[in-house]
Amino acid sequence: MNHSLSSNVSRTIQTRLVLPPDTNHLDTIFGGTVLSYIDEIAAITAMKHSKAAVVTASIDTVNFLSSARVGDIVMLEAAVVATGNTSMEVYVKVECENLTTGERKLTTTSLLTMVAKDTDGKPTSVPGVIPQTEEEQQLFHESHERKLRRIKIKDSVGGK
Amino acid sequence: MNHSLSSNVSRTIQTRLVLPPDTNHLDTIFGGTVLSYIDEIAAITAMKHSKAAVVTASIDTVNFLSSARVGDIVMLEAAVVATGNTSMEVYVKVECENLTTGERKLTTTSLLTMVAKDTDGKPTSVPGVIPQTEEEQQLFHESHERKLRRIKIKDSVGGK
Amino acid sequence: MNHSLSSNVSRTIQTRLVLPPDTNHLDTIFGGTVLSYIDEIAAITAMKHSKAAVVTASIDTVNFLSSARVGDIVMLEAAVVATGNTSMEVYVKVECENLTTGERKLTTTSLLTMVAKDTDGKPTSVPGVIPQTEEEQQLFHESHERKLRRIKIKDSVGGK
Amino acid sequence: MNHSLSSNVSRTIQTRLVLPPDTNHLDTIFGGTVLSYIDEIAAITAMKHSKAAVVTASIDTVNFLSSARVGDIVMLEAAVVATGNTSMEVYVKVECENLTTGERKLTTTSLLTMVAKDTDGKPTSVPGVIPQTEEEQQLFHESHERKLRRIKIKDSVGGK
Amino acid sequence: MNHSLSSNVSRTIQTRLVLPPDTNHLDTIFGGTVLSYIDEIAAITAMKHSKAAVVTASIDTVNFLSSARVGDIVMLEAAVVATGNTSMEVYVKVECENLTTGERKLTTTSLLTMVAKDTDGKPTSVPGVIPQTEEEQQLFHESHERKLRRIKIKDSVGGK
Amino acid sequence: MNHSLSSNVSRTIQTRLVLPPDTNHLDTIFGGTVLSYIDEIAAITAMKHSKAAVVTASIDTVNFLSSARVGDIVMLEAAVVATGNTSMEVYVKVECENLTTGERKLTTTSLLTMVAKDTDGKPTSVPGVIPQTEEEQQLFHESHERKLRRIKIKDSVGGK
Ligand SMILES: CC(C)(COP(=O)(O)OP(=O)(O)OC[C@H]1O[C@@H](n2cnc3c(N)ncnc32)[C@H](O)[C@@H]1OP(=O)(O)O)[C@@H](O)C(=O)NCCC(=O)NCCS
Ligand SMILES: CC(C)(COP(=O)(O)OP(=O)(O)OC[C@H]1O[C@@H](n2cnc3c(N)ncnc32)[C@H](O)[C@@H]1OP(=O)(O)O)[C@@H](O)C(=O)NCCC(=O)NCCS
Ligand SMILES: CC(C)(COP(=O)(O)OP(=O)(O)OC[C@H]1O[C@@H](n2cnc3c(N)ncnc32)[C@H](O)[C@@H]1OP(=O)(O)O)[C@@H](O)C(=O)NCCC(=O)NCCS
Ligand SMILES: CC(C)(COP(=O)(O)OP(=O)(O)OC[C@H]1O[C@@H](n2cnc3c(N)ncnc32)[C@H](O)[C@@H]1OP(=O)(O)O)[C@@H](O)C(=O)NCCC(=O)NCCS
Repeated sequence: MNHSLSSNVSRTIQTRLVLPPDTNHLDTIFGGTVLSYIDEIAAITAMKHSKAAVVTASIDTVNFLSSARVGDIVMLEAAVVATGNTSMEVYVKVECENLTTGERKLTTTSLLTMVAKDTDGKPTSVPGVIPQTEEEQQLFHESHERKLRRIKIKDSVGGK
Repeated sequence: MNHSLSSNVSRTIQTRLVLPPDTNHLDTIFGGTVLSYIDEIAAITAMKHSKAAVVTASIDTVNFLSSARVGDIVMLEAAVVATGNTSMEVYVKVECENLTTGERKLTTTSLLTMVAKDTDGKPTSVPGVIPQTEEEQQLFHESHERKLRRIKIKDSVGGK
Repeated sequence: MNHSLSSNVSRTIQTRLVLPPDTNHLDTIFGGTVLSYIDEIAAITAMKHSKAAVVTASIDTVNFLSSARVGDIVMLEAAVVATGNTSMEVYVKVECENLTTGERKLTTTSLLTMVAKDTDGKPTSVPGVIPQTEEEQQLFHESHERKLRRIKIKDSVGGK
Repeated sequence: MNHSLSSNVSRTIQTRLVLPPDTNHLDTIFGGTVLSYIDEIAAITAMKHSKAAVVTASIDTVNFLSSARVGDIVMLEAAVVATGNTSMEVYVKVECENLTTGERKLTTTSLLTMVAKDTDGKPTSVPGVIPQTEEEQQLFHESHERKLRRIKIKDSVGGK
Repeated sequence: MNHSLSSNVSRTIQTRLVLPPDTNHLDTIFGGTVLSYIDEIAAITAMKHSKAAVVTASIDTVNFLSSARVGDIVMLEAAVVATGNTSMEVYVKVECENLTTGERKLTTTSLLTMVAKDTDGKPTSVPGVIPQTEEEQQLFHESHERKLRRIKIKDSVGGK
Repeated sequence: MNHSLSSNVSRTIQTRLVLPPDTNHLDTIFGGTVLSYIDEIAAITAMKHSKAAVVTASIDTVNFLSSARVGDIVMLEAAVVATGNTSMEVYVKVECENLTTGERKLTTTSLLTMVAKDTDGKPTSVPGVIPQTEEEQQLFHESHERKLRRIKIKDSVGGK
């Protein structure tokens, strides 16, 4: 594939209401629920970009900076910010908002590598990406550096 | 708290059958489902160790090395491998097994930092840990180095 | 409450991937699943506008014009388009997109009346709304007519 | 198909216990949960009548007259009350009961149009219906009028 | 409590459509799904009879005689058939129907003992029952014998 | 099949955190939730032993001796303890633990008969079992007696 797509093509928004089954004893949302929202939006984003089925190859370190409570809403925004031959790097930003006060806080950001697969389950090539926002452009330019860091981490963790 | 607990106290095992709702078009399990299993077992493990409610502070890079299919089982094993003042580092190993062939593959390993909270939601101190298996002992000794790497990653990702 | 809010305050977007458990034998999404997505986004939208808890008083006739299949994505967009004393009329537009072909179709539109409630469960007053898009402005101007039609339908259906 | 079936053939009853995950902050059931129960029983009812797979074409205005709380039970009763060539009109009555006091209240009634589909997903003809209860007979006789009203509403809502 | 209630007071019906997430590789419903439907209807039935919260004390041997497939419906019918001081014996009959052929088969029957609890969680006395159908009357008369058999089984299984 | 497998081959452990959606008004876990956990682990256990798909033929009387509350963990352990030609008897032990106090209680034990099926859905023969723990050896030796008792119960319950 020799053309590139704007990151606007894959940009995706999701809004979720935090309900009791998503929360622990402290009435705050489970990390696992947030992680599964992140993976779902990353998959939709990568499918929009590649027009193919995708799998999650990896998710970089996630730091949970603040937590959502029952009745808050969780807002996710995602876009493809870099591409390889068959892989796409998807950036996901997660914020939560207290609807009564209107206060909005950053919960976490996350970078996932999604790999496009053909109908036989083999990795298949994807279009390039043209980042649009300033944040996306910066992420695009640092993506090579991150790729190297990922390989290093993968190697240092080794066979574990 | 001035005593330490064996990692056997927190060690936890989980076994899950992969069912169609957990899978995508390629019949392979969603990354988000695996991430939410990892977070759930890490929470149980940290609660066993600390006898307190816990939240997920962070999860280190997860690489999905192989994937489970409908009808496979996913086996998770977790234990606390290092502790700080109020935080616990939990190591989770995820394997999948094809029940018909008996073939077993490593899906991923993961390191999470869980923080114990008192009933007011404030971080509360946790017992130390005495690692038991060789793998846990190695993880215990490298935990300081990982803590430094985590701070570096957190800083390099910055305000994003 | 004597001020009015722009419809941009309440505008909400949701994106969902259609998975096998959401579908029937024909591999198309259940009407009930779409209805429950519509109600969820309408509740979030009305909560953002009123900064209060809300209940669904009614939902106008919903015509399902096209249906989503496994692997498609469902996109919902909602905003408050008219207000009464304690009630808000929320407009929800549902589209589905085939990710492989990029084809996007209108699934349905829907108008719901949500009532704000205070902590005792009593209806409580809500701010007015200033519609922004052309479509919202038209809906705003016809809202009185719809209110009359709703009363007529409610009366004609009677005690049933 | 030239025979007609009694509405007793399709008549269906469902009883559901309201649990915390089905409810909002006010401890009352979500409108969307009730709508999805209504669609599910309408589908079963229409499948019983047509012996075919069915899809929801439309649902008429739903007014929520009273609401169910955690621990209440929701009772749904449904039957086919009119038929076209490939469509069936299903009437659904929803009541809720407080189990401690025994008090029972009407939550809502609803009329849905379900269309039978053959294995290729094409609309397929359905048997006629012979209404049994007085309520069903009245609904049967007014069904033509409702059909006209539905067309009018669809036209007035237009392309929106 | 010195009055008795007809078994019609507690009689409860439930109808469920078998969907893919409820089934295994062979496309047949999980035993566990049926068991959880049985427990849910038994709880509703016992709550209707006792006007109290209830817990499941035991469920007698369940033999699965036939199984439901995707697209079938499962019909459950339950009633209180005998009572002790604080316990109620609930009889549940489960049938499945192939909607296309209209063929209906007995899946299983089940007898559960439900105990009424007051708001402190202590067993609380329940009204007697007057069985209505022939089947219920026979079950009522044999209930003492079953109680003895249950004690014997409980003892023979012992501390296990 | 003429070889036998150690019960260690099928032995399976599961650990679950009790969350609000699994519980009733008294904050204790539903019997149906425990039954569905029991059936799930029995299926995994029998699949490991037989390397085939399995269905639940029956579950012996289950007595719920104590109950788990929100925040407790439920631990299940299961193994094949006896085999017939195509059936396997699976023993499941369920304990619950209060994580704060560390107190652990027996919730119930259960014996299920699972039948192996080939890809056409026909019963297929299974390997024998060599019980390992003392408890499993005792269950193995009494299995013939239980089989006779099961037949007697089935006959006494009759066509109901
Ligand atoms: C991810 C996966 C497809 C990689 O397979 P592989 O045999 O290593 O394939 P390749 O070497 O051709 O790599 C394909 C792409 O993935 C990238 N990749 C592989 N592992 C990666 C990792 N851990 N992190 C980031 N990218 C990775 C490669 O760099 C390559 O990218 P490029 O084509 O853009 O250069 C494979 O490991 C897999 O299927 N894992 C399971 C995925 C899954 O099912 N996840 C859900 C939960 S388990
Ligand atoms: C994690 C959290 C409790 C840390 O709060 P804080 O104000 O930074 O608290 P402290 O500075 O006292 O840190 C508490 C411990 O957490 C550790 N910690 C904080 N952030 C961390 C991170 N991103 N990764 C690893 N450890 C972290 C600290 O090192 C400290 O450990 P120690 O007591 O063992 O030395 C807080 O950020 C939070 O509540 N986040 C949301 C958690 C959550 O709800 N997750 C689920 C989904 S959003
Ligand atoms: C909706 C409800 C709050 C209305 O209660 P009420 O006693 O009629 O209250 P009021 O007469 O004060 O009406 C409150 C507002 O709702 C509006 N309203 C009431 N019924 C309505 C209906 N069927 N359709 C549209 N609006 C309606 C009124 O016009 C009024 O609006 P306004 O204040 O902007 O003029 C009440 O019927 C209720 O609680 N229903 C159940 C809601 C619910 O739980 N839904 C979820 C699933 S059951
Ligand atoms: C069932 C339970 C309330 C019995 O408690 P207990 O201290 O034995 O109470 P009692 O001796 O007063 O018995 C209360 C009634 O239950 C009956 N009962 C107790 N165990 C029983 C069993 N295994 N099977 C049938 N009936 C039983 C008694 O016969 C008595 O009936 P009666 O009052 O009609 O004569 C208690 O064991 C319990 O709470 N178990 C957990 C129930 C639960 O949470 N189940 C869901 C999943 S774990």
